[in-house]
Amino acid sequence: MQQIGVEALRKLEQTLHAEIPLTRAMGVCVAQFNAAGLTLRAPLAPNINHKSTAFGGSLATLATLAGWGLLQLLLREQRPVTVVIQESSVRYLRPVAEYLQAICSMPQARELDKFLRTLTRTGMARIELEVSIPAGGETAVKFRGWFVALDKSRHPHAQPV
Amino acid sequence: MQQIGVEALRKLEQTLHAEIPLTRAMGVCVAQFNAAGLTLRAPLAPNINHKSTAFGGSLATLATLAGWGLLQLLLREQRPVTVVIQESSVRYLRPVAEYLQAICSMPQARELDKFLRTLTRTGMARIELEVSIPAGGETAVKFRGWFVALDKSRHPHAQPV
Repeated sequence: MQQIGVEALRKLEQTLHAEIPLTRAMGVCVAQFNAAGLTLRAPLAPNINHKSTAFGGSLATLATLAGWGLLQLLLREQRPVTVVIQESSVRYLRPVAEYLQAICSMPQARELDKFLRTLTRTGMARIELEVSIPAGGETAVKFRGWFVALDKSRHPHAQPV
Repeated sequence: MQQIGVEALRKLEQTLHAEIPLTRAMGVCVAQFNAAGLTLRAPLAPNINHKSTAFGGSLATLATLAGWGLLQLLLREQRPVTVVIQESSVRYLRPVAEYLQAICSMPQARELDKFLRTLTRTGMARIELEVSIPAGGETAVKFRGWFVALDKSRHPHAQPV
């Protein structure tokens, strides 16, 4: 596994806040990165809904950001690479009545290796990531996202979504 | 089709802003309701991403709100009914570089009728809604959401997601 220190996590959080203003409104912070994956957090108050639990839009957004953020960390030495989301699905299993926490699992080594090799070879690659949001010790939300990484130096005119 | 006037749209917008604070940060407004469905809008600036187009999280959130909002309008005379999202899928087909606009299509009359009859009979019903987000005259985002409506007076202890 790549060594990713506190400084890289702080930089990711700064990037999120600078480039995606909604992350500031949500109070998103980059909490942790380890062999299991990347964890993002956000307080409940700015992300509450009409039932005084976490708003579905905030949950889906935090999960999307966890996937995007994990790829930013894994690809941080391969700039300029743009990462975009192509497709996602979300299952809301139970309400979240505490601070929001999205954990993007590290992809299997074989999948990650294939993704990185394709990106190196063609300048563009796609990977599926899984994110879970726990609440009260159980899985509250399951998210799957398909992300595309694009080497801008090799595809200057490509327009990924 | 139910007659839904400007006042009901204004009330829906007030409800969104009062009960889901993220909608204020996004600048969500209720733009239009007609036989085709409900349209929500939001300016690009607070919903921008690292590529200066609309952030995927904002797009998915606006689509979720369009589905939720349409059901709020259709069920407004059947309170107290709670509407929650159970599952969704999003396909990001092209970037959105203008104001965000999510159009939730009115469900087919047969589907809507079945949904309303089930809700009346059992106090709980589920419906699938489709939302599209256009950009530059083409479909930029396709969203499908499964929503659950729950009559709280008949299921006081039920805990939908």
